[in-house]
Amino acid sequence: MYLNTIMLWMRSLLSCWVLMLSGSALAAFSGQHIAEQGGTHAGATACNSCHGADGGGNDAAGFPRLAGLNAVYLQRQLHAYREGTKRNQLMAGIASALTDQEIEAVTAYFAGLTPTSHAKAPVGIPLGPGKQLVEHGDWLGRGLPGCNQCHGPGGLGVGEAFPPLAGQPAKYISDQITAWKSGLRSNDPIGLMKHIAVLLNDDEVKSVAAFYASLPLSVTRSSSETKNIASEAPKEKAKVNDVHTKPLPHHGDAREGAAAGPKGYFQPPVRNAYPEGPFGDMVRQGEAIFVNTYDHPLASKYVGNKQSCEGCHLDAGRLANSSPMWASWVAYPAYRKKNKMVNTMIERTQGCFKYSMNAQGSKAGHPPSAESNTIVSLISYFYWLATGAPTGDQHMAGRGYPRLTETPKGFDPKRGEALYAEKCSVCHGADGGGQMSQGKVVYPQLWGPDSYNWGAGMHKVDVAAAYIKWNMPLGLASPTQTKGYLSDQEAWDVAAFMNSHERPQDPRYTGSITETVEKFHKSKYDYYGKLRGTDGKLLGEDVPIK
Amino acid sequence: MYLNTIMLWMRSLLSCWVLMLSGSALAAFSGQHIAEQGGTHAGATACNSCHGADGGGNDAAGFPRLAGLNAVYLQRQLHAYREGTKRNQLMAGIASALTDQEIEAVTAYFAGLTPTSHAKAPVGIPLGPGKQLVEHGDWLGRGLPGCNQCHGPGGLGVGEAFPPLAGQPAKYISDQITAWKSGLRSNDPIGLMKHIAVLLNDDEVKSVAAFYASLPLSVTRSSSETKNIASEAPKEKAKVNDVHTKPLPHHGDAREGAAAGPKGYFQPPVRNAYPEGPFGDMVRQGEAIFVNTYDHPLASKYVGNKQSCEGCHLDAGRLANSSPMWASWVAYPAYRKKNKMVNTMIERTQGCFKYSMNAQGSKAGHPPSAESNTIVSLISYFYWLATGAPTGDQHMAGRGYPRLTETPKGFDPKRGEALYAEKCSVCHGADGGGQMSQGKVVYPQLWGPDSYNWGAGMHKVDVAAAYIKWNMPLGLASPTQTKGYLSDQEAWDVAAFMNSHERPQDPRYTGSITETVEKFHKSKYDYYGKLRGTDGKLLGEDVPIK
Repeated sequence: MYLNTIMLWMRSLLSCWVLMLSGSALAAFSGQHIAEQGGTHAGATACNSCHGADGGGNDAAGFPRLAGLNAVYLQRQLHAYREGTKRNQLMAGIASALTDQEIEAVTAYFAGLTPTSHAKAPVGIPLGPGKQLVEHGDWLGRGLPGCNQCHGPGGLGVGEAFPPLAGQPAKYISDQITAWKSGLRSNDPIGLMKHIAVLLNDDEVKSVAAFYASLPLSVTRSSSETKNIASEAPKEKAKVNDVHTKPLPHHGDAREGAAAGPKGYFQPPVRNAYPEGPFGDMVRQGEAIFVNTYDHPLASKYVGNKQSCEGCHLDAGRLANSSPMWASWVAYPAYRKKNKMVNTMIERTQGCFKYSMNAQGSKAGHPPSAESNTIVSLISYFYWLATGAPTGDQHMAGRGYPRLTETPKGFDPKRGEALYAEKCSVCHGADGGGQMSQGKVVYPQLWGPDSYNWGAGMHKVDVAAAYIKWNMPLGLASPTQTKGYLSDQEAWDVAAFMNSHERPQDPRYTGSITETVEKFHKSKYDYYGKLRGTDGKLLGEDVPIK
Repeated sequence: MYLNTIMLWMRSLLSCWVLMLSGSALAAFSGQHIAEQGGTHAGATACNSCHGADGGGNDAAGFPRLAGLNAVYLQRQLHAYREGTKRNQLMAGIASALTDQEIEAVTAYFAGLTPTSHAKAPVGIPLGPGKQLVEHGDWLGRGLPGCNQCHGPGGLGVGEAFPPLAGQPAKYISDQITAWKSGLRSNDPIGLMKHIAVLLNDDEVKSVAAFYASLPLSVTRSSSETKNIASEAPKEKAKVNDVHTKPLPHHGDAREGAAAGPKGYFQPPVRNAYPEGPFGDMVRQGEAIFVNTYDHPLASKYVGNKQSCEGCHLDAGRLANSSPMWASWVAYPAYRKKNKMVNTMIERTQGCFKYSMNAQGSKAGHPPSAESNTIVSLISYFYWLATGAPTGDQHMAGRGYPRLTETPKGFDPKRGEALYAEKCSVCHGADGGGQMSQGKVVYPQLWGPDSYNWGAGMHKVDVAAAYIKWNMPLGLASPTQTKGYLSDQEAWDVAAFMNSHERPQDPRYTGSITETVEKFHKSKYDYYGKLRGTDGKLLGEDVPIK
């Protein structure tokens, strides 16, 4: 008895010691145990019986794969089952029967497993519409971003809030979308999925689900980089739509060549219906650079942060009220107050490299030259997007984005801070540092060394407020419907919060902060040269180039 | 009597000696005598009694000014009066009463006088239509070049064939145009004036005549250079037509913004209705560079010959089937076989400097950079000309010029030589060296050191034949009506003659003529590398850069 007591005491001591020594190792052990054997309480059955011995899910039953998913994401789901914001009788019972500690352990276990999937695209469901929605959404028609804009390249997930969908059973995905729609599931950040789900009809839901079920669990860099070149440009389609090999209607009939799209906006050429031949190759390359500037083999050496053109010009520069490139193309050359000169489209684009992409901090140290492959590709892409648009039209509907009038309360970074935490940080991170997935930036950096620099237009509060109002959060605001999500006041405040942070130096910096303010930053919408915190330093003071 | 005889003999001897010593001095003396006193034969009355003591003409009577006119031109007129190809009873009598020697003398005298005029614009005749026709013609409507395109800057004449019209009495000018029309005058080279005159209605004739009568007898370089900036762009008009400050109709309504002009061609903005502000200034500057490239203060340092853009792109780049710039603007960027790359419009324009304007022989030694004032101005001008044209339309009616099919006889420089002498040399000179007036090139050099180089598209016979067919001779061919003047066979032959002459080196020259031919000049339409004459040398061999 005494011995028994001593033994028991020693065993607990050992447990404590193991716990103290390596909480996570133990959790993993416990996690595996729970997954394989169930929890300590009745009702917490073994996860693997439904989700598979390898955590790869059960395709036919629609039980999701768990292996390799983000632990925090999984925890949140179990809590949501418990709380009823993700309704499922079976899972509600199991989640309620697990202790918080067990939840932590078992989710860590699944997060640590090699991602595995047994999902297959169901027979008889066309994948085309789903692929289109997953990759590009339907911005113009419904203000709908592509699913992957949040769920990351290849649908492989981003951080804690955006789970991978690639390789999930089609039944699981369609059930979830249906649940968002009906309200049976409501644990989405800022109501994003509810908003998205109601925009999809049943066939689309099925196709999206089937397409995701068909996707592999990895994207290779090269396939991502060249994805638009071969697979998505059927030769025949390209021919039909190729304005560079087929005569356009006479100029007077531009209306036919470039029909006004939904909402009365100019409609750029059908995506992927690239012209043939070397010109088409340049257009494709321009698009690839546009959507992945900082990491493109040609363009990266000119980018001194982690930005891409598409970061501001949504939907690959196609989207009305999101500075669409077709509207810019026909509006240049033009006089710019910024540099007091007439700028060609090439110079305007070089300006984006200089400021928004902080070229001074890049390997090259300067923007690409007018003759560079990077610039000629981008220019070719812009030109192609503008096919049929009337030269010289400075006022195309949807150009840039509508500006906001000031609110009576003005703008306040303090108010913006709370709002940012609530509505923006889920994507852009609490520290404004953005989020990446598969080596790609999914949510761009808003301040800090990898953001736009102090010379970019976006650093001005009025510019940023207008952009945010009509474009953010992605999928909740609808630029083409000029339907903002934030109130004007909120847009001003959050823009002020964002732009009162430090960022790379203005390349026009004269060596003196006072002089630089005097020359370039006198606007009341400009935080450059203002106090940056409590250390007495000014924003922009002693900031390195990158 | 003996003494008298001796004195007479000595006087004739002296005369002979003076004649031998200085034929021209004597002619001038005799010329003055004839002008003041009349000729040796009855009926050859003193010129001055009608043409004024200073040779400045008689405005009211419509007697032309003779002072300062080209001697050969004046001789031809006296012969024409004699022969009846310029019908005037009074002048026919006088010209017939003058010996050939007297004609030579008196015309040399008048040619040597300081140009003088007593002409005034007649009251009550509007000068506007005349000014428009004199400076710009009506290419699009009637294939009518501006009078000054042949009569030179300021209407001050070019060489032996194109007399100055500035300061001629309005009555004289309108009488002459009427005489060309009716056939009373027919001494025009290659029937040019007959062709032009019949295109003008009576009011236009009066206005043209009045406008010329109002012109001074000199143009200053600065006024010529800036002529479009202040005087010809009434603020109000510019406002009304300023597409850059006034919203264009929606892109679907491009037809309204850029109505199809006569003949169904795209119509560029009204001439001189420049946009306001700094952008408008760049457009104006671009136009000034375009029409006077080799001699423009900004652009000249990049031009290694005496060419201007307008030399090939007629009517300041506005003219359909004469490579109009509005059609080019919307067709770039595009892939070019010439350099196997996609070229932006800027690169395409730099190509013109490289080849057509032989930049390698210029002060700069290279074409202007993409950021240069010269390029940005030109690009702004092209863009403005294309206002309303649909982006990406590669097939605008009037783009470039229609190509010719080969003729059964092929092309032959020998046949072309005779034709050139007959139809082309009056403007471009027997040696292809062009003609200048007031320090400006009026007729561009077609070969030799001041012509386009061996890399220019125009050096190829098929390209040149097509250009010549639809554009030459100026005013006889009508590009907008696709009405050639030469037969296809003649165009091929004269192009072959032109392009079988030496010109500045191809900037792509590798150092070896054989290799350069192999790389760039294998076309059968290309004389580069062929025998250049009887010296055994090849065209392009040992040719200096300029």
